[in-house]
Amino acid sequence: MSSEEDAYFSSNPPPRSLPEHTTLASSFINTHALANRRVVLITSGGTTVPLEKQTVRFIDNFSAGTRGATSAEYFLQAGYAVIFLHRQFSLLPYSRHFSHSKDCFLDFLSEGPDGNVGWREGHDSAKVRDVLRRYRRAKEAEMLLMIPFVTIGDYLHELRAISRLMRPLGRKGLLYLAAAVSDFFVPPERMAEHKIQSTDAVKGFAGDAQKQGSEDEEFDNFDASPRVPRSKRLVIDLDPVPKFLKNLVDGWAPQGMIVSYKLETDPRILVHKARYSLDRYQHHLVIGNLLSTRKWEVVFVSPGREDNWLRVPPPASMRKGGETGWGDAEGRPLRAEELPREDPATEIEELIIPAVAELHDVHIGR
Amino acid sequence: MSSEEDAYFSSNPPPRSLPEHTTLASSFINTHALANRRVVLITSGGTTVPLEKQTVRFIDNFSAGTRGATSAEYFLQAGYAVIFLHRQFSLLPYSRHFSHSKDCFLDFLSEGPDGNVGWREGHDSAKVRDVLRRYRRAKEAEMLLMIPFVTIGDYLHELRAISRLMRPLGRKGLLYLAAAVSDFFVPPERMAEHKIQSTDAVKGFAGDAQKQGSEDEEFDNFDASPRVPRSKRLVIDLDPVPKFLKNLVDGWAPQGMIVSYKLETDPRILVHKARYSLDRYQHHLVIGNLLSTRKWEVVFVSPGREDNWLRVPPPASMRKGGETGWGDAEGRPLRAEELPREDPATEIEELIIPAVAELHDVHIGR
Repeated sequence: MSSEEDAYFSSNPPPRSLPEHTTLASSFINTHALANRRVVLITSGGTTVPLEKQTVRFIDNFSAGTRGATSAEYFLQAGYAVIFLHRQFSLLPYSRHFSHSKDCFLDFLSEGPDGNVGWREGHDSAKVRDVLRRYRRAKEAEMLLMIPFVTIGDYLHELRAISRLMRPLGRKGLLYLAAAVSDFFVPPERMAEHKIQSTDAVKGFAGDAQKQGSEDEEFDNFDASPRVPRSKRLVIDLDPVPKFLKNLVDGWAPQGMIVSYKLETDPRILVHKARYSLDRYQHHLVIGNLLSTRKWEVVFVSPGREDNWLRVPPPASMRKGGETGWGDAEGRPLRAEELPREDPATEIEELIIPAVAELHDVHIGR
Repeated sequence: MSSEEDAYFSSNPPPRSLPEHTTLASSFINTHALANRRVVLITSGGTTVPLEKQTVRFIDNFSAGTRGATSAEYFLQAGYAVIFLHRQFSLLPYSRHFSHSKDCFLDFLSEGPDGNVGWREGHDSAKVRDVLRRYRRAKEAEMLLMIPFVTIGDYLHELRAISRLMRPLGRKGLLYLAAAVSDFFVPPERMAEHKIQSTDAVKGFAGDAQKQGSEDEEFDNFDASPRVPRSKRLVIDLDPVPKFLKNLVDGWAPQGMIVSYKLETDPRILVHKARYSLDRYQHHLVIGNLLSTRKWEVVFVSPGREDNWLRVPPPASMRKGGETGWGDAEGRPLRAEELPREDPATEIEELIIPAVAELHDVHIGR
């Protein structure tokens, strides 16, 4: 362990549940290692960056956890045991089909004449039965372990601890990093004890927070002047988050296969950034995707191979006269505005996971 | 409408669903106004402040929505019709009893011998039946309308539109503002189009975001030096959010009763800040609470009245020798460290809502 890594982990306290989580993970991993089974650690959802010790405000990453939760189901289908390290209250495998719907979950339930509460007729009752069966099967076979995190600090501690526990799996371990992880954090020694008051923002947040007066109502106006005076800036001193990918590759999980995601919004830089990340960390696969088209296509970038675009079948609206291909959109990135607003009929993870598993075969066999 | 208010609302676009929401709210309010019923608009959950147009990152306020969702149930119990303006995926009335549990919601379900999916035996089946009955009653009597928001901009547009629609209710309208609303926002003209790259952060986020190079890996280190060089600051130019309370009082809902919450972490400034807010906005009630004790006590601060502390019954651990009062803690703020980690047996909203309704009686009668 490098001293810098040491410094990070000793100055940022672990989450309270870490010992409980490592006990669970250790027993889970050992069981499956003995059974000679493949184990994937999936990270999912966004990390928070607390701005105060008693946290009222934080910086967050947009992520419902769809990619991670969906991938988990397909990994289970492919025979993997799954550790699902996820942001608390983000989407979970199986329950995702119902949990973040526009309806309240009570709308799915009704009281029968016998007073028993059951699934409401007609509300996808065949679907819930199927999902429930698959969920129970995974749980009863002890193939699925769910571990929550909230902050960037929690995430890094959990990732380090669990990936180290995966060493006995050797090449059969897979790290599939789908979480949206912050690049920055506020070190504890610079974190304000109490809720940051608006006046503090005027004079700079870090360090000064306790010295300010306590009226937070200074900005009581609808001042719409286009240039905001410098004095109204909220200045947040953030430190860069340690580049844990490097540590994963070099020390925490040196034999396992490591897959990371790269989410961008600008199509012009996506592949370049994915390749750059791969060159830098020397891991095994970067899956690139764009925020606006991420359910339709992704690109696999891996060492010594051509970029490989995976794409779900085209929607009816883009097929012309019985054509089954993507027509004009063949061979170039999709554009958000040519896609229907509904989700595609095929979940792209149905294509991604078998393709990852194939590369994992190669990794194990080499 | 002041021109400053006008400037804010014309430069920050309304949420796409606003027309649909106002149609629903208008019909809901008119029905209850005709029935001479009281209507409360409850705001609940935290607002987000997007940092990018294609939002990957945002600043958020900590709020599960417990206060708002719980209050909604007690307002319904008190005979109010409830408009529940809430952060998407935050806690909802009734479903809150089950939705943010540590268990996956599929753990509550099981498949019967007939293949029907029902509530699992022993998993609070009496409780779910009771909750479901109360939910259905509220929905069937059309006493509950749920409207979601995400960003601070959505929130302000929805609040303005719905509170204006409440005018026909006169003094029978109640605004109960329990949402955790950001003090700051990033105006659209200064928002980066794409995901902010880490190098942009070096040189300051606002405005320059598109001009930077595209490698985001500049901070690849575990640099734990205690002083971060100035060049590694993330500087976010934020504008103060318009003080909408002033507008609510003066123009949007001039006759209704307006209740706001003040959440602090520092007990020394709580009452002072609540009183200050009341003096400034001239509304009717500020309910003060501390992050660490908010389920145990709150303070009512209202014009021309003494501060009024409401407190749930003490936990067994704080009663000494058969005493039923708070003992040593009587007459001073509670301290987090003397309270048990479990939630209190009584929901404090069971005390808050009747007390608010009583003040609303006075407001209507005057």
